[in-house]
Amino acid sequence: MKQIRREHQLARTDRADLDSVLDAAAVGTLATVVDGQPWVVPMLYARDGDRIVLHGSTGAGALRHVAAGAPAALCVTLLDGIVVADTLFDSTANYRSAVVRGHLTVIDTYDAAYALELMSDSLIPGRSSEVRSSTKKELAATLAVALPITPDGWTVKVRDAPPSEPEEGVASGGWAGVVPLRTVAGDPVPAPWVSADTDVPESVHRLIKGT
Amino acid sequence: MKQIRREHQLARTDRADLDSVLDAAAVGTLATVVDGQPWVVPMLYARDGDRIVLHGSTGAGALRHVAAGAPAALCVTLLDGIVVADTLFDSTANYRSAVVRGHLTVIDTYDAAYALELMSDSLIPGRSSEVRSSTKKELAATLAVALPITPDGWTVKVRDAPPSEPEEGVASGGWAGVVPLRTVAGDPVPAPWVSADTDVPESVHRLIKGT
Repeated sequence: MKQIRREHQLARTDRADLDSVLDAAAVGTLATVVDGQPWVVPMLYARDGDRIVLHGSTGAGALRHVAAGAPAALCVTLLDGIVVADTLFDSTANYRSAVVRGHLTVIDTYDAAYALELMSDSLIPGRSSEVRSSTKKELAATLAVALPITPDGWTVKVRDAPPSEPEEGVASGGWAGVVPLRTVAGDPVPAPWVSADTDVPESVHRLIKGT
Repeated sequence: MKQIRREHQLARTDRADLDSVLDAAAVGTLATVVDGQPWVVPMLYARDGDRIVLHGSTGAGALRHVAAGAPAALCVTLLDGIVVADTLFDSTANYRSAVVRGHLTVIDTYDAAYALELMSDSLIPGRSSEVRSSTKKELAATLAVALPITPDGWTVKVRDAPPSEPEEGVASGGWAGVVPLRTVAGDPVPAPWVSADTDVPESVHRLIKGT
């Protein structure tokens, strides 16, 4: 991330820091190697204890390839602020990022039901208790893969600081600081077939409140 | 992205669509291959016509490696909404994503000044006109790399739709729809050495208004 000035870019080594970053985001970039070339795809994910669950259609050829045991890395980044420095050189961002490296394993059909619940509840907490169970057809069409979190298989970096202080003699005397960023939810938009008097479920209320 | 239901996941093929996604985000995930393994890092970037400029410290070993000509892919993702479906299977997200593939080239010292201006103005539009020019020391400590955008070297995917309509007989009759997400800026926080009466610059006002 602009390979941030090292004095402010902190590697975090507590497992709790990793979980905190992973649990705060919904989308990551999954990378693997295909024919010697880097291959990347954005994916929704959920952390499930010591593994990360990624979920796709069984028809997704690329995911199939990854699931076949190729080495993979998942990168998750949260942009927390724009760092407005006194110089162009020090302009940067505050962020939290995590990279988890390992080999993907396919989750079998029995676990696919659990994976679907986990993914939904990670994206929309509590949603799985509001809808019916997945059908056999849906489970058969689900390809869920897991990336294990191993002790040596992850890194977390966080920048959460003001801009670097300008050196004597080169400071502009102008304003410098941080513009914090956050994600907020707008009003929920019902699907076309949903009648206007249908109550918005608790999970959606919580989702909006939680952002 | 949950390898989204294909009926709603549209590949976009207009170059304008690519530019629109790239210009809407500030951070991407850069991937390459190191010793046969996938290697990923989040980076700030700016589009400069037909190339993407990434900028880091010359001390960043990993970026050096990438800059040495290894094949690279940059993945940019914007999460636009949570798609609350009638089923767990159809829960997903609305998003815009772009992947640009190519070989990185190092931008030389002369261009580093331009790259620093470009990066700052991409992150904080107009900032380069508010601060002094970069010093020789700063330029020498800057490693700027470019990823060319070639006609065959990119893909864009967008999901911007309600949930998939439930099949007859399996619908819950409950609410389904989309919770839109957006990024907003909070009040700017001055750096510790900036006095409280220092005016917030125009670029920061614009940044806050623009989010």
